[in-house]
Amino acid sequence: MSAFPEVDKIQYEGPDSKNPLAYRWYNPDEVIEGKTMRDHLRFSVVYWHTFRGTGADPFGPGTAVRPWDDGSDSVENAVKRTRVAFEFIEKLGAPYYAFHDRDVAPEGASLSETNKIFDQVAAALKEEQERTGVKLLWGTCNLFSNPRYMHGAATSCNADAFAFAAAQTKKCLEITKELGGENYVFWGGREGYQNLLNTDMKRELDHLAKFFHMAVDYAKEIGFTGQFLIEPKPKEPTKHQYDFDTANCLAFLKTYDLDKHFKMNLETNHATLASHTMQHELEYAGMNGILGSIDANTGDLLLGWDTDQFPTNYYLTAEVMLSILKYGGLGSGGVNFDAKVRRESFEPLDLFYAHVGGMDAFAKGLKIAAAIRAEGEFDKFVAERYSSWASGVGAEIEAGKHDLKSLEKYMLGKGEAEANQSGRQEMLENLFNRYM
Amino acid sequence: MSAFPEVDKIQYEGPDSKNPLAYRWYNPDEVIEGKTMRDHLRFSVVYWHTFRGTGADPFGPGTAVRPWDDGSDSVENAVKRTRVAFEFIEKLGAPYYAFHDRDVAPEGASLSETNKIFDQVAAALKEEQERTGVKLLWGTCNLFSNPRYMHGAATSCNADAFAFAAAQTKKCLEITKELGGENYVFWGGREGYQNLLNTDMKRELDHLAKFFHMAVDYAKEIGFTGQFLIEPKPKEPTKHQYDFDTANCLAFLKTYDLDKHFKMNLETNHATLASHTMQHELEYAGMNGILGSIDANTGDLLLGWDTDQFPTNYYLTAEVMLSILKYGGLGSGGVNFDAKVRRESFEPLDLFYAHVGGMDAFAKGLKIAAAIRAEGEFDKFVAERYSSWASGVGAEIEAGKHDLKSLEKYMLGKGEAEANQSGRQEMLENLFNRYM
Amino acid sequence: MSAFPEVDKIQYEGPDSKNPLAYRWYNPDEVIEGKTMRDHLRFSVVYWHTFRGTGADPFGPGTAVRPWDDGSDSVENAVKRTRVAFEFIEKLGAPYYAFHDRDVAPEGASLSETNKIFDQVAAALKEEQERTGVKLLWGTCNLFSNPRYMHGAATSCNADAFAFAAAQTKKCLEITKELGGENYVFWGGREGYQNLLNTDMKRELDHLAKFFHMAVDYAKEIGFTGQFLIEPKPKEPTKHQYDFDTANCLAFLKTYDLDKHFKMNLETNHATLASHTMQHELEYAGMNGILGSIDANTGDLLLGWDTDQFPTNYYLTAEVMLSILKYGGLGSGGVNFDAKVRRESFEPLDLFYAHVGGMDAFAKGLKIAAAIRAEGEFDKFVAERYSSWASGVGAEIEAGKHDLKSLEKYMLGKGEAEANQSGRQEMLENLFNRYM
Amino acid sequence: MSAFPEVDKIQYEGPDSKNPLAYRWYNPDEVIEGKTMRDHLRFSVVYWHTFRGTGADPFGPGTAVRPWDDGSDSVENAVKRTRVAFEFIEKLGAPYYAFHDRDVAPEGASLSETNKIFDQVAAALKEEQERTGVKLLWGTCNLFSNPRYMHGAATSCNADAFAFAAAQTKKCLEITKELGGENYVFWGGREGYQNLLNTDMKRELDHLAKFFHMAVDYAKEIGFTGQFLIEPKPKEPTKHQYDFDTANCLAFLKTYDLDKHFKMNLETNHATLASHTMQHELEYAGMNGILGSIDANTGDLLLGWDTDQFPTNYYLTAEVMLSILKYGGLGSGGVNFDAKVRRESFEPLDLFYAHVGGMDAFAKGLKIAAAIRAEGEFDKFVAERYSSWASGVGAEIEAGKHDLKSLEKYMLGKGEAEANQSGRQEMLENLFNRYM
Ligand SMILES: [Co+2]
Ligand SMILES: [Co+2]
Ligand SMILES: [Co+2]
Ligand SMILES: [Co+2]
Ligand SMILES: [Co+2]
Ligand SMILES: [Co+2]
Ligand SMILES: [Co+2]
Ligand SMILES: [Co+2]
Repeated sequence: MSAFPEVDKIQYEGPDSKNPLAYRWYNPDEVIEGKTMRDHLRFSVVYWHTFRGTGADPFGPGTAVRPWDDGSDSVENAVKRTRVAFEFIEKLGAPYYAFHDRDVAPEGASLSETNKIFDQVAAALKEEQERTGVKLLWGTCNLFSNPRYMHGAATSCNADAFAFAAAQTKKCLEITKELGGENYVFWGGREGYQNLLNTDMKRELDHLAKFFHMAVDYAKEIGFTGQFLIEPKPKEPTKHQYDFDTANCLAFLKTYDLDKHFKMNLETNHATLASHTMQHELEYAGMNGILGSIDANTGDLLLGWDTDQFPTNYYLTAEVMLSILKYGGLGSGGVNFDAKVRRESFEPLDLFYAHVGGMDAFAKGLKIAAAIRAEGEFDKFVAERYSSWASGVGAEIEAGKHDLKSLEKYMLGKGEAEANQSGRQEMLENLFNRYM
Repeated sequence: MSAFPEVDKIQYEGPDSKNPLAYRWYNPDEVIEGKTMRDHLRFSVVYWHTFRGTGADPFGPGTAVRPWDDGSDSVENAVKRTRVAFEFIEKLGAPYYAFHDRDVAPEGASLSETNKIFDQVAAALKEEQERTGVKLLWGTCNLFSNPRYMHGAATSCNADAFAFAAAQTKKCLEITKELGGENYVFWGGREGYQNLLNTDMKRELDHLAKFFHMAVDYAKEIGFTGQFLIEPKPKEPTKHQYDFDTANCLAFLKTYDLDKHFKMNLETNHATLASHTMQHELEYAGMNGILGSIDANTGDLLLGWDTDQFPTNYYLTAEVMLSILKYGGLGSGGVNFDAKVRRESFEPLDLFYAHVGGMDAFAKGLKIAAAIRAEGEFDKFVAERYSSWASGVGAEIEAGKHDLKSLEKYMLGKGEAEANQSGRQEMLENLFNRYM
Repeated sequence: MSAFPEVDKIQYEGPDSKNPLAYRWYNPDEVIEGKTMRDHLRFSVVYWHTFRGTGADPFGPGTAVRPWDDGSDSVENAVKRTRVAFEFIEKLGAPYYAFHDRDVAPEGASLSETNKIFDQVAAALKEEQERTGVKLLWGTCNLFSNPRYMHGAATSCNADAFAFAAAQTKKCLEITKELGGENYVFWGGREGYQNLLNTDMKRELDHLAKFFHMAVDYAKEIGFTGQFLIEPKPKEPTKHQYDFDTANCLAFLKTYDLDKHFKMNLETNHATLASHTMQHELEYAGMNGILGSIDANTGDLLLGWDTDQFPTNYYLTAEVMLSILKYGGLGSGGVNFDAKVRRESFEPLDLFYAHVGGMDAFAKGLKIAAAIRAEGEFDKFVAERYSSWASGVGAEIEAGKHDLKSLEKYMLGKGEAEANQSGRQEMLENLFNRYM
Repeated sequence: MSAFPEVDKIQYEGPDSKNPLAYRWYNPDEVIEGKTMRDHLRFSVVYWHTFRGTGADPFGPGTAVRPWDDGSDSVENAVKRTRVAFEFIEKLGAPYYAFHDRDVAPEGASLSETNKIFDQVAAALKEEQERTGVKLLWGTCNLFSNPRYMHGAATSCNADAFAFAAAQTKKCLEITKELGGENYVFWGGREGYQNLLNTDMKRELDHLAKFFHMAVDYAKEIGFTGQFLIEPKPKEPTKHQYDFDTANCLAFLKTYDLDKHFKMNLETNHATLASHTMQHELEYAGMNGILGSIDANTGDLLLGWDTDQFPTNYYLTAEVMLSILKYGGLGSGGVNFDAKVRRESFEPLDLFYAHVGGMDAFAKGLKIAAAIRAEGEFDKFVAERYSSWASGVGAEIEAGKHDLKSLEKYMLGKGEAEANQSGRQEMLENLFNRYM
């Protein structure tokens, strides 16, 4: 029995379509830069917001109308929900999905019972994957909701919280492997602090590193070859989250000799909460070789919390796709909609509108980015702008032929530096509009 | 002839004094934790704001009344100004000062002329240092004001800007050594970008690293043994500054094999612009062994730019001094007032009020911090809070005796983690107030 | 049977006490400026956070351990909870409390059933008030949690939501009157918008004004003489809340001829979310004659959401009390702790620590403010600063004796304005520290 | 002699043009909704940023290369500059310009001399207006740059600052009238406070109101019939600016009986600094009948100061034009580019790129807005969303036929409110993209 009888498989109808349940830009088989849109974008639907989100916020309970949910935490209900989820993903035509262990399967009275439940639901997920061809982009553990993790998981002052998290991660790694997950993500929801008065930050970070090393070792042991990803976020729910931004993560990874094993899963709203643009985070990760995957959403820059809205702004998606194309694509990563419908968008249909709009926005962004790259105007400008480094003193410096003394000598001879050229920001912004 | 005839040497008069030009808390010879206040705090006056600040802002020109300045950029005026500066520092009783090359000495028509002028002024500075006993905390280059640095200095797209900056840095290192400077600071005012459309971030960071290596090499060559410091700031004047925060700097230093040579010069207002508390930055630097020195000021958290106000809040200064004491003091660093009087505080007298208040606030903060440490209530609480790591599974994990499998086994046996304890944030905040 | 057997009535023990469950500053009978501390501060405990808060946040469920709660929504449980609440308030020695209708009494299956339940619980509240002497500072309706209010209450696009809110408000006004409530508050939790694309802002504000007029009329009809208060907040849960700040409220009240009937209930964390200091909001309300009451809490200025923390900062409380004393006290208002213990402070004891600290911080703030007023240094400075308005052209302007022409004539004759005096911000901030 | 020999009059070349100095969207004679683009948009070039901006920022002096400027403050130079300005405006094809008194004419040694200089330059401006047909959108006084205004102008603690500002305003009103200015603007750059410790806010606002009344009276006396406008800004340079946002202004205008005489000049970057969207401010002003004119620019939402960038984002310009069309156009107002080229965009050519891009972005925004209105999908949605107010209880409430009692009765009968409908934010955002 269909959970969405009123919605057929979403079709590509082209830019002139006025059908709100059709794609105007996402044409999965269309080839761009030698690859299909499907393979560029690797869209993924998240289980948590889309199938477990209720619309609750700190000022009121959930509003979502989900006829397929009986409101219980039963295994039966969880299994039934997997059917709905895959119907949705299939109708959308997204090739991937992602989950936390606790989204798909409820907790039991003890860890062993919980693990058994997880196995049962995982079997249903596997069945659905095989039935539909939808694949698992990544799995992850929820190590932040249960009150046992109130002080953090790997960084808790309670050693048992660490131990429980370790056990939970082991199981989730196994299930992720079993389901063919292509990555495994750590979002350290409460790995941070609420205040420094009661916190030993150094000790907590030592523990976090130890935790990551254990995960790396166990993955090797069981032959899980997916990519490990860290998802940075600066704050919320904690006052300070240790994985503040990509640079913070990189410093941590290098300090603890973990940088070979981890890449980044970057989220727009987390970037902006850290007061970076998403493009900055993408470029920073890309140039450091740790761009792994993205959580596609958007925030409201006039609000100070993680709104996780569906992305619709073409400027944003074009910038994101420019960076992704520049660094050769996302590899095993994907464009994962870590986004939730508004509390007031409480009908199942809103889930479709939201994803169709987000996928279309990214498809349009991909087309804009490809057009920009094809013309090469920006690349040409940048090359010209740095041309003083291509020969003369610039090239010599890059080649390691100078030190402070030789440069002083050079400049004493010259007296003053060559004149600068305009940075042309306004012209470049106008040029960008030519592709919109 | 005195520039401040109406002000005598500022004296310590104790907490009950109502004299706005006396110290109520800063009693330089008072011993705390076995060291004098003078040696704990190592106060430093900055040449730029205090002797070159005009009160100009983007909406109006300067207001400052400085009778000793003839408004010209002559060498004579620059030398005369050094006498005033040292009279001020001496009357204040601060043991240190700090400068940029361009604060103390004007630029000439060519680099060689500029260097000669710098030598002349440096001779006057040396004379004054010897006369007064005031020492140089650090020197630094201004690599951001001159239009030649509009696109950055070491990270400019213009190779000549790099070369000029290198020459300028060589000279300033020499003068800093000549004047006995105990540190050398890099604040990368325009080492960042205004937009990504015209920027090759990776190439710019490569250049920055090269620049720092040249400085390190030259210091070694000339025997300058002062500590190199980087001062992080997330933005302003650029949209994104590469030295965003301590963690960003650490990632950079490790990436380019510079982490042995640099520590941090942390500024409160820069910390908060990066949405960190100053205490966070101090702890993060301290635990990574790169806490070097501080720029003592404060921002207005409801404003989005660097206001560089004088610090007067005892909570702030107590927190700062707690971290400094915890990490064994600032070493060759100091408490440097990178702070400016308001545009409306345009009289010379305001410079005294401002510094007296700032120094007193830090002296009070030191006393609060020492009292907190003497009682040990916070340390005791933290030790107790992490006690699960002192034995049992926690100690075993720290000792490297566990992996995911052994922890799963442990937790399967136990079923659920030990209960958490309250974090007691409210009680701890009340406890802090007991020392205020 | 006591809910807090381990806690006795909190006593004043004076500044040297190290007892975390004693007052160091709050000495209710101590007379300051001719009035007891009790009457100055009129402390109030809130029912919602303190007795209904669970510690849930968007990333996890509640953590609070409340042995007296059976977890059900039964009337019996609600009545039992009132006993606990009044034991707590009595042990604390707070003279007031405040509630939303839905905090104290659960909803029934229909409005009429809900009203009956409310009556039952109100009877218990009345009994407790009489037993303890604790009084009701204000009542209010929760018009934001129930999904019926997802689009707002008085400003909903659904007319029935308005009608339901009207009925709910009628009942709550009656109960508030019955319980001797001294004020009645409106916090428009969802009176705002999530986006402008689907919103008719003008129509919504017209409805809001109509709603307020109905409340005013009905209060008159039933003889409720308490003060109506609006609590401004700029955002959260909505993107834009119509009662953004005091000035926004004032514009609304004047536009709809409501300004004679309403004052403000100001909350620190709402002030700062609107990028005002609390002192600004207090002064702005005070000078416009609409300062009614305060929600005493604090936010974290580096976080962008309403953290509603307990206030412990003496600078904040001193500033607040300075404004309250300046405008002659809060009248029928009070210092209401709209604050919640952290999710990690989950034990009943934390409720005591939190309130004891908050009350002590306000008592200390009152003492600081009174000392400042007694010495009169700030008033003297301000009077002197504006002295040019006390005579000459300033006094003439204030007296209405000038127009542009006469002032041009005056200034043409003079050529340039009299010199300005320093604003002395630094000196004044130092002076403030003298009272800390 | 031409100042811009390399630039011809900018032409409309249509969407496919790759000429960066041509319009792709701005086709002045094209008729939209019965009016030409020229008359809808009423573009205006600002004298201050465009002809007096130097590129200086708090960290370095100006960079701008302006061959026509001799760097002096002579009257001759000022007059010469007017020729350049009008050549620029003419080549751009903008029908309007705007100025502060001090942008166009330098100050003399006394007020009377200053006034004479202003007359001389005004004669040149008039000549140029007549020669080119370019008109004056508005005049305004610079009452914030000169140190005499350090504490404010109309709100200064120095009565002479008020008097000087009054004289200056009289003169500027006369010149604005003489030049046919269609509006007169007040931006209260320093009408606010830096701290509350030294400020009498009520007295300052009383003075400000008096000042505005004087201006209104004098305009009437001399027959100046242009519209008075206030430009809100929340902060910068002051900590708090009295004209914080539109609502703050409205409260002030109503309090002081000025609301009939003033409308708003809204600036995007000021809106966002106040944490409003520009669209919010436009809607708020529009619905209150005080939408006067706009300062077209944009800020960077990740930076906390007024960057005054040229607007190029089509979403922004479409939203702005939707509100302007909705409220029947800007009347005597216009789209005024209060925007400045970046410090690094220092060549005259950048001024052209910047304006061409801004004008094109607004022309594109106008076309998008008109298309949205022509289809009417959003209006239809909103009408449907509020349909419960069109009949039944909703219509009765709007008609004033209900009070709390009748609504309680209605809802007691009904038991629960009608179900809500989805707010469909995601669908509406997707729909908006259909017009991009
Ligand atoms: Co995410
Ligand atoms: Co998020
Ligand atoms: Co600094
Ligand atoms: Co600074
Ligand atoms: Co409140
Ligand atoms: Co609040
Ligand atoms: Co403007
Ligand atoms: Co602006």
